[in-house]
Amino acid sequence: MPTNKQWRLASRPSGWVRAENFRLVETALPEPKDGEALVENLWLSLDPYMRGRMSDAKSYVKGLEIGDVIGGQTVGRVLESRAAGLESGNTVLTQLGWQLYGCAKGEHLTKVDGSRVPLTYYLGMLGMPGMTAYFGLKEIGRPKAGETVVVSAASGAVGSVVGQLAKMGDCRAVGIAGGPKKCDYVVNELGLDSCVDYKEQNFERALKQACASGVDVYFDNVGGPVLDAVLPLMNLASRLVVCGTIADYNADEPYAVRHWRSILVNRIHVQGMIVLDWTNRYGEALQALVAAHAQGRLKTRESVIEGIENAPQGLIGLLKGENFGKQLVKLA
Amino acid sequence: MPTNKQWRLASRPSGWVRAENFRLVETALPEPKDGEALVENLWLSLDPYMRGRMSDAKSYVKGLEIGDVIGGQTVGRVLESRAAGLESGNTVLTQLGWQLYGCAKGEHLTKVDGSRVPLTYYLGMLGMPGMTAYFGLKEIGRPKAGETVVVSAASGAVGSVVGQLAKMGDCRAVGIAGGPKKCDYVVNELGLDSCVDYKEQNFERALKQACASGVDVYFDNVGGPVLDAVLPLMNLASRLVVCGTIADYNADEPYAVRHWRSILVNRIHVQGMIVLDWTNRYGEALQALVAAHAQGRLKTRESVIEGIENAPQGLIGLLKGENFGKQLVKLA
Repeated sequence: MPTNKQWRLASRPSGWVRAENFRLVETALPEPKDGEALVENLWLSLDPYMRGRMSDAKSYVKGLEIGDVIGGQTVGRVLESRAAGLESGNTVLTQLGWQLYGCAKGEHLTKVDGSRVPLTYYLGMLGMPGMTAYFGLKEIGRPKAGETVVVSAASGAVGSVVGQLAKMGDCRAVGIAGGPKKCDYVVNELGLDSCVDYKEQNFERALKQACASGVDVYFDNVGGPVLDAVLPLMNLASRLVVCGTIADYNADEPYAVRHWRSILVNRIHVQGMIVLDWTNRYGEALQALVAAHAQGRLKTRESVIEGIENAPQGLIGLLKGENFGKQLVKLA
Repeated sequence: MPTNKQWRLASRPSGWVRAENFRLVETALPEPKDGEALVENLWLSLDPYMRGRMSDAKSYVKGLEIGDVIGGQTVGRVLESRAAGLESGNTVLTQLGWQLYGCAKGEHLTKVDGSRVPLTYYLGMLGMPGMTAYFGLKEIGRPKAGETVVVSAASGAVGSVVGQLAKMGDCRAVGIAGGPKKCDYVVNELGLDSCVDYKEQNFERALKQACASGVDVYFDNVGGPVLDAVLPLMNLASRLVVCGTIADYNADEPYAVRHWRSILVNRIHVQGMIVLDWTNRYGEALQALVAAHAQGRLKTRESVIEGIENAPQGLIGLLKGENFGKQLVKLA
């Protein structure tokens, strides 16, 4: 009989997340109640939002309590089902979080088909990151052909989809990423027009050169100094999608934004984007993203960590930008 | 034969505007060319945006050059007309700026009727400040009955109209102003539900108490620490009208905004508001504001400085919040 392993919140991080904020617990396998299924998790998704859940600051979803299993999406396989419509062997998308096994109600499990695309895509390009990119760009960014779209964390799970969608919409797409390898990938693999390395000393000048006609849409996954570098370049009636503030996630004090006045001068539309607001339209996005992938116009890259034991280091690395593409933990 | 007096830009201010940034020049009266009229200015409007025009930083209208007459709206009387549709004695709204006399093309002069309302109202409640309040609140703020609308600089030319329009829309209206006299006026004369004094030490706590259901619309005329006090109180899907950043106008470095993340967490719609974007709809606003005034539902207060010589001190005082209501200079 296998045992379950779970990562639980041991303490709230202050600044950088550290290994001691997590505690690995071994428990017996849970038994599914009526209407539930027992799932073996195969892949765990690591995402920047997880940092927010470890804090007790007000955010868009209630944070974890000390002792809770760290939350997150997984793809798993049903081992035993007492839920209608699910049977042993089905592959499912779950919210079971950082553990090897778990029980969930049938309505909280979504069957996914691993025969057409790898199962991991449902955690990345075809999952929450892909949905975030699709609705944030389409509904808040609203780029028109010929406009310049800038996206930060351009090689990441959300950013890579944003950049490729912008290209499909006949925009000039400019990525921002950390280091030459990621920048090369963004241009040569993903096909963006340009990618600027925020770690380079001449970042601001290079960004300005890459955006010679100014910025019409900025899809911001990072906040911080990168946001302040883009704000002055924004055009009249441009749009700014506020999707993440990863620059703040490891800081005790949030980064203070200097170029607020650009919002006034350029009449920028700024709007916060949380994918949970768009659940009733996921089907539309999934269809569009699957089609783009089938046509070879939507590529993805995954960064895989082996073993649940290494999940905390994976999140810590992700928050430092050490991942390259969608960060996954292979659990089985 | 009278002589003209003009205030010109002598030097660009760094930080606070100072008297030495202006130079008073006496010149001969200009002669109207064909299509122009000679106007004697009666009233000059002083507005916070004038600080921006004295700078050479990029803004929504090109700044002044050294030696230029300081720009601004006036109400004046036509002395001599070579423009179709205008005759001597007509009262007109002009962009002639800080001078006693000037010539302008007929199409740049708008006849205004001083028989129904005082001429000065065309510089305040029925002029650019009123239009700014009307379109900013209606089109960007979009308050619904029962919502909480917060407005900063609530006793000022724009803010006082915003607050009263919010009350007409059956909102809870909360003003922010400097000092007990202005706060009393906002509540007891303008009829807002509450007004919080940003100069008080317990400002943030008082603001939170005044907005017990959070903030649905924030009409921001000031930026700076007041903006940072409101941002964390904003509700889900709330709207933030970025209308001014007066807190920055006398600073060498702009104020850096700490609570950017609230835009994400609360999916706030933030948008810059410049009244010049709405010129084709001024007629609609004028009709609504005149009607509200006629019904006694739109009050205003004016702060009058006598004599063109005192205009620079008037602007300096305005930027420090020393005015009380719409700041005017009586020129004749």
